[in-house]
Amino acid sequence: MDLDSKYSKNKYTSLDHFVEENGKIYAGHHYLIDMWNCLYLEDEIKIKDLLMRAAKSAGASVLQVKTHHFGEGQGVSGVAILAESHISIHTWPERSFAAFDIFMCGNTNPELSLDFLTKTFKPKKIDIKKLKRGIIS
Amino acid sequence: MDLDSKYSKNKYTSLDHFVEENGKIYAGHHYLIDMWNCLYLEDEIKIKDLLMRAAKSAGASVLQVKTHHFGEGQGVSGVAILAESHISIHTWPERSFAAFDIFMCGNTNPELSLDFLTKTFKPKKIDIKKLKRGIIS
Repeated sequence: MDLDSKYSKNKYTSLDHFVEENGKIYAGHHYLIDMWNCLYLEDEIKIKDLLMRAAKSAGASVLQVKTHHFGEGQGVSGVAILAESHISIHTWPERSFAAFDIFMCGNTNPELSLDFLTKTFKPKKIDIKKLKRGIIS
Repeated sequence: MDLDSKYSKNKYTSLDHFVEENGKIYAGHHYLIDMWNCLYLEDEIKIKDLLMRAAKSAGASVLQVKTHHFGEGQGVSGVAILAESHISIHTWPERSFAAFDIFMCGNTNPELSLDFLTKTFKPKKIDIKKLKRGIIS
């Protein structure tokens, strides 16, 4: 696998394409996003669609999307497995709460997924933590 | 759904069972674990088995485990979707690196999954970040 291969939206992005930025080398970005009072907390079909679109908005390639609805009035879990890691969601309608994480490596832009998820799920309150994974010191 | 239902290894654990601890109420724990120079970076079958066993070691219920091997000499991605959220892994054999996350709500113990993963994958170097999700202020 070519560590130096360039990314193109029309090409496969190698999974070992660590990010090089300002002299730092790391695997990718991991965002943990807590949304309160947002939409679609019980809507498995909508969640599946939005996970795929959130991934694509960042330039990521979706390999599989798996969802599980825990039953009437209960939450949904969903994971999009990407060529560049994953996006997940777990919802608690009883608490009006959804927990997302976006883990993206390669030449993708997780900010675009975050923007997409915020604009579509429309939380009244949001808490975002942004971390880097696999930092080579 | 009964928010106060008690957890039992032999019973379904309701997804909205937020944790109450020392006066704090939150959805669950989210651990981000970076392992360097560990085992099984290319072994999809072993990874699938170890994700399931890691989840069970914490008292969690596995709903689905999905894995993807990116090809000879390349990495593996895997996600165990749990009744209590998820465990994921993404590996980069070319960098001798694996990124895990353990997100667990309900009456589970993510420390036991972390112990299990550390003992089985045997990293020479490890970086662990522990966060809480869905904190009700």
